[in-house]
Amino acid sequence: MLKEAIFHRPKNNFAYAYNETTLHIRLQTKKEDVEAVELIYGDPYIWEDGEWISLKKPMNKTGSDDLYDYWLAEVSPEYRRLRYGFALKSEEETIIYNEKGFYEEEPKDCGLYFCFPFLNKIDVFQAPTWVKDTVWYQIFPERFGNGNKENDPKGALPWGSTDPSTTNFFGGDFEGVIEHIDHLVELGITGIYFTPIFKAKSNHKYDTIDYMEIDPQFGTKETFKKLVEVCHENGIKIMLDAVFNHSGYFWEPFQDVLKNGEKSKYKDWFHIWDFPVVTKPKPNYDAFAFVSDMPKLNTEHPEVKDYLLEVGRYWVREFNIDGWRLDVANEVDHQFWRDFRNAVKAEKEDVYILGEIWHDSMPWLQGDQFDAVMNYPFTTATLDFLAKNKTKATEFANSISKVMHSYPINVNEVAFNLLGSHDTPRILTICEENKDKLKLLFLFQLSFVGAPCIYYGDEFSMTGDQDPGCRKCMVWEEEKQDLNMFAFVKKLIGLRKELPVFGNHGDIHFIEANDETNHVMYEKVSNSTGERILFVVNNSDKDLVVTLPDGVKGTVMRDLWNG
Amino acid sequence: MLKEAIFHRPKNNFAYAYNETTLHIRLQTKKEDVEAVELIYGDPYIWEDGEWISLKKPMNKTGSDDLYDYWLAEVSPEYRRLRYGFALKSEEETIIYNEKGFYEEEPKDCGLYFCFPFLNKIDVFQAPTWVKDTVWYQIFPERFGNGNKENDPKGALPWGSTDPSTTNFFGGDFEGVIEHIDHLVELGITGIYFTPIFKAKSNHKYDTIDYMEIDPQFGTKETFKKLVEVCHENGIKIMLDAVFNHSGYFWEPFQDVLKNGEKSKYKDWFHIWDFPVVTKPKPNYDAFAFVSDMPKLNTEHPEVKDYLLEVGRYWVREFNIDGWRLDVANEVDHQFWRDFRNAVKAEKEDVYILGEIWHDSMPWLQGDQFDAVMNYPFTTATLDFLAKNKTKATEFANSISKVMHSYPINVNEVAFNLLGSHDTPRILTICEENKDKLKLLFLFQLSFVGAPCIYYGDEFSMTGDQDPGCRKCMVWEEEKQDLNMFAFVKKLIGLRKELPVFGNHGDIHFIEANDETNHVMYEKVSNSTGERILFVVNNSDKDLVVTLPDGVKGTVMRDLWNG
Repeated sequence: MLKEAIFHRPKNNFAYAYNETTLHIRLQTKKEDVEAVELIYGDPYIWEDGEWISLKKPMNKTGSDDLYDYWLAEVSPEYRRLRYGFALKSEEETIIYNEKGFYEEEPKDCGLYFCFPFLNKIDVFQAPTWVKDTVWYQIFPERFGNGNKENDPKGALPWGSTDPSTTNFFGGDFEGVIEHIDHLVELGITGIYFTPIFKAKSNHKYDTIDYMEIDPQFGTKETFKKLVEVCHENGIKIMLDAVFNHSGYFWEPFQDVLKNGEKSKYKDWFHIWDFPVVTKPKPNYDAFAFVSDMPKLNTEHPEVKDYLLEVGRYWVREFNIDGWRLDVANEVDHQFWRDFRNAVKAEKEDVYILGEIWHDSMPWLQGDQFDAVMNYPFTTATLDFLAKNKTKATEFANSISKVMHSYPINVNEVAFNLLGSHDTPRILTICEENKDKLKLLFLFQLSFVGAPCIYYGDEFSMTGDQDPGCRKCMVWEEEKQDLNMFAFVKKLIGLRKELPVFGNHGDIHFIEANDETNHVMYEKVSNSTGERILFVVNNSDKDLVVTLPDGVKGTVMRDLWNG
Repeated sequence: MLKEAIFHRPKNNFAYAYNETTLHIRLQTKKEDVEAVELIYGDPYIWEDGEWISLKKPMNKTGSDDLYDYWLAEVSPEYRRLRYGFALKSEEETIIYNEKGFYEEEPKDCGLYFCFPFLNKIDVFQAPTWVKDTVWYQIFPERFGNGNKENDPKGALPWGSTDPSTTNFFGGDFEGVIEHIDHLVELGITGIYFTPIFKAKSNHKYDTIDYMEIDPQFGTKETFKKLVEVCHENGIKIMLDAVFNHSGYFWEPFQDVLKNGEKSKYKDWFHIWDFPVVTKPKPNYDAFAFVSDMPKLNTEHPEVKDYLLEVGRYWVREFNIDGWRLDVANEVDHQFWRDFRNAVKAEKEDVYILGEIWHDSMPWLQGDQFDAVMNYPFTTATLDFLAKNKTKATEFANSISKVMHSYPINVNEVAFNLLGSHDTPRILTICEENKDKLKLLFLFQLSFVGAPCIYYGDEFSMTGDQDPGCRKCMVWEEEKQDLNMFAFVKKLIGLRKELPVFGNHGDIHFIEANDETNHVMYEKVSNSTGERILFVVNNSDKDLVVTLPDGVKGTVMRDLWNG
């Protein structure tokens, strides 16, 4: 066996509490190198005649990527304490692997084994349970619907009259969302993620002027309250966008610093390198990227922190929102997010906290900070295969497996699985307007583990390049809507609701990934009911004949799609 | 190159903030497989013509264990943001390794690279600076000195008149410590770690009756205050033992639960499985191990938490202690320790927080919980080689390297490096009373990175088996003291003080580990002064001739030991 490839370390995706009574233990081994693995485990304080008393149970191979196989065992330790190691078997040998290294025989001292010291309830990663069954829908509020012309910003253009630019406005607002609530209900989505709605200057509103005010172009606090109520009545949750990494240029404290320099009482609310503050040619303060209009906030400063935590609490308390999406979340300090979690969850226990992180996010997903991150590794793997043809079936399956094994299973179940957003080209555009590909994308997204998010208009086959192109006005003229695509997405969402195993109540396994035909076959299996759904994704323009896997042949199957 | 052996993941011992401006990036590769590694790095927002702008710098090989080599580079990113990857070179090939995998050419999109999003000061692991220069001395207060016969517990035996048992008492107290302060000052130690001093029943006092009271056998709060003052006047810090995982049987809230059962207002302060509470044959509540006298505390309960946090604050605030050692720290929830850190550091910024954890402790050493853990992996590796002859020189060097690479360097610098304690046999006894071996142990411990801790009496060559044997009364009759050993330890501590590079202000590198002669050669090197100390540890009873390493030959050397 290749010892160098064998990896385990507790308290991350390799060993974690799945719930208040169950631990998940995972192991990495070289791909196709190990035949079987057993978990050796026991309570550290149960000994007999100077020997630690341990049990064994087989681990299941849950997947592979290009280099490694991954193994999993579930344990519910009676006294919530665990010491454990691994017995690895290949044709040639059996070796024992524990914290101290490799052994030929099982050591009898549990001090040498891995340690999960105690399953404390408060440390368990616990996202709100409703998220597991949510289908999100992202709305860029300036472009979804204009329900009230009176609050249109000056110079607003007629709806959809031209392409979006970085500066133009079309007057989208809350009443526009309320007006079109039937569309959302019919589609079947159960959560809306709004990009920022607070007072700001730009059309995207990421340059906050006032965190405590609604941007007047969207409506009043009253309208927003009504919107939340209407959505809740229709079983739709509401998530807002918290831009706490940086403020906008016109935020009062920053204006004060610009005006009063070192004398400003807000001078330590930012990271100013020297005074006077200059914005050109480059800002002499920390900013988002190097954008002088977006000065980075000093979230370590107690006043800034108090202010932003109150923002977090305020919109939950007063407007009963259900979630916060955190912009540029990984550039803000961990300590801030720990306190943010405590603050907003104290207001409403089942608020969902979603961080925008494009990279490996394990440090934020330990239970003390976020409930989820935007699952860009899923996005990339899926688009590379299905939309861009950059990868073949095997690489796709490997990448997806890698993502899934990078996080605990309870983290995967609430991941925010997006295919596109206001920050990326429209997925149909990435597909070079091949609608069959778009359908495969929706199929995979909506049958995958996690909480899928549909970017407004994708269900009508809208197109658009990298922003601002991807921020077109929503099409409301029926003749311009792709009703076929709408029906397709609606049907998938319906299946997800009707059959728990279609969505988050089934484990996913890849059965086949074939680079020649470029298809993948995967199944979703319910541990509780035994129900099984078989999916075949044919990512080519040729017809495909597949061989059903063992265990399926001879059983009664139902064609889910054609009834 | 063996790709399966290559490992990196940010925000742990592989990528961390060493201080407010410096990041350390480490890489693991298969042992002797890679010739050179370069770090590819840059700011994520600096691009030119659609390509990310990156720099390169060589990484240093900082050590090896049995399977892997480890590489390190230091970076101080101008804007505190970093994306990075690795260029690995062997004779046959050069490969690029980043977050998404392996490449033949450097990708030009920093989105594919590893991410250290922002170096936020508040997240930096920062232990009190004084700990780096502290030599600890552990006192088991019942057995160090009896300075006041009047507070002796009933039935206390004459000092040292018999062997210690699990139940006997000898009357050690605070006045005994004050009386012998000259001994500690002469030895040169600069911190005392006291095992518990709070009111309790046993002689070890781990079964707390009252967290807010001194055990009367040790003295009064006044005496304790005086002890702290005397120590501080002599440059000696004081660390107390916090037993927060469990209380003692006679702690009032537990007594109340025993008496009033379900009606007790303290019933949720513990983890009671069912009522009435029984202690025999096995407790029907969570306990430390299965010891019915040590009921586990429910540290998730707000009242318990408030109470214990106040205990933490109280002894810092009222008695000006300098550190807390946390008993059975890993079985208490992380959330409790985060709040504990905030509470006691608010009272006194440079309090040292030391957790008792015998296993891999990275999850507690991220900056939000502990400053250090008891470095048992160091203990095991050192004793196995120098005391027990269980391992040879190579395995010893590998094990020590593995320990060092399991944690960030700033964590290693404040690790609590013990060789023995009240919980283990005396080190001289483990050495089968070979005093030469004891000297080698002290030499290695006192020249190693971290904060060493001497168990009371080891400096006089005291012996004793597993507890209670290791808890003998301190020898104060000069004729029974090993003054030669005392002088040896004193000299080592003196060198550590005189030459910063001897202690924590030098990097350690193994130069040779020879299984035939069973010796190791290592050096300590100061990055700032260039000073270099060469150590040879001859772990055999034969004379040894060593070859000096390249770069030393021909330079002027000073014999540190013989002057």
